[in-house]
Amino acid sequence: MQSKPKAVVLLSGGLDSATVLAIARAEGFEPYALSFRYGQRHEVELAAAERVAKALGAVRHAVVDIDLRQFGGSALTDDIAVPHDGASGDEIPVTYVPARNTIFLSFGLAYAETLGAWDVFIGASSVDYSGYPDCRPEFIEAYEAMANLATKQTVSGERRLGIRAPLMHLSKAQTIQRGLDLGVDYSLTHSCYDPAPDGTSCGSCDSCRLRDRGFAELGLTDPARRP
Amino acid sequence: MQSKPKAVVLLSGGLDSATVLAIARAEGFEPYALSFRYGQRHEVELAAAERVAKALGAVRHAVVDIDLRQFGGSALTDDIAVPHDGASGDEIPVTYVPARNTIFLSFGLAYAETLGAWDVFIGASSVDYSGYPDCRPEFIEAYEAMANLATKQTVSGERRLGIRAPLMHLSKAQTIQRGLDLGVDYSLTHSCYDPAPDGTSCGSCDSCRLRDRGFAELGLTDPARRP
Repeated sequence: MQSKPKAVVLLSGGLDSATVLAIARAEGFEPYALSFRYGQRHEVELAAAERVAKALGAVRHAVVDIDLRQFGGSALTDDIAVPHDGASGDEIPVTYVPARNTIFLSFGLAYAETLGAWDVFIGASSVDYSGYPDCRPEFIEAYEAMANLATKQTVSGERRLGIRAPLMHLSKAQTIQRGLDLGVDYSLTHSCYDPAPDGTSCGSCDSCRLRDRGFAELGLTDPARRP
Repeated sequence: MQSKPKAVVLLSGGLDSATVLAIARAEGFEPYALSFRYGQRHEVELAAAERVAKALGAVRHAVVDIDLRQFGGSALTDDIAVPHDGASGDEIPVTYVPARNTIFLSFGLAYAETLGAWDVFIGASSVDYSGYPDCRPEFIEAYEAMANLATKQTVSGERRLGIRAPLMHLSKAQTIQRGLDLGVDYSLTHSCYDPAPDGTSCGSCDSCRLRDRGFAELGLTDPARRP
């Protein structure tokens, strides 16, 4: 019996990446989850990542420490207030973290190479999203092109490395439906940018709102902890 | 008087990146040096980076902690012996660190964005090098294309972000000559992959050999510390 191919899955502990982990497994991969402790305010999401990795059968869950606070410039890592007014408009919001997905994917690429994996999954979506540039399909495509020139593994040319973003064209409701079909328990996930010290979600930040709307469209209530 | 443009300079403390820092300054940039503590055996290079940053007038020298040892797979970070036989041949050597330049450039991109810098300098060269895939011009070009889709700064489109590799087509001797013309004191730099505990270079690893040959071609002796 041939062993399953390995895949790296970037796992924040939120709704999207939990769904992606379930998708990777359903596609027949042995998923290796990768999370980051990057000075995020909402570090409670790492506990969620651990619960999700376990529940959805990740073979291993690696957590890499990196300090993005050194550079500053984001409400997710600095003393900048997370907005709760829902008025994001057309601008890229203050919750944007400089080059975050580029950095995360770069560690994913390193991990893939040491595992011998040819697929790196990320929960990026350009529908119902916060307007971050590094969630758009053109970014993912350019990253994949670069990655295939970057490592010993890709240069050997056995096959192409794929940056897989299966949620790219799904709405939040479609993502949730896909996850429910695959048995994801969303009560284990955490999405809030500005949780209470006990991990309770605020219900009013951009991330909570997008999530709420997704469940509402399906006629469901978000099982995440609320005040 | 207009203030100088800022540039991020990836600085390992070795011969190449010291030269690049001098070039960035000579081109009229205010250089912000960026180094990494990544579990390298030759951590003595960080002390060299600090000396070089000071001597060559970096405005600031940031050191980011990242742990590449988690993934393993390199003689520079693991308990794999650094080769001293000079027999590298056509293969990518064991001193290759998975996705290292991709990761370093990604932090450089984040730093550039928070500084408002449009240039990121790296000492990559495809002449007299160790055969690492992430030192080739096609990699740098693909990285630059990706970077220009990745961040809030680049998406705003004020101008393009440049990944600058001014040593790309220079031999080691040409690099040294360029640095000497710009007043670089190479006795401050450290290149050895396998130094003694007191920081003395081995003189026989790939990095020491390339460096030696460069100085020899110019009829000079490497001023680095030797046994």
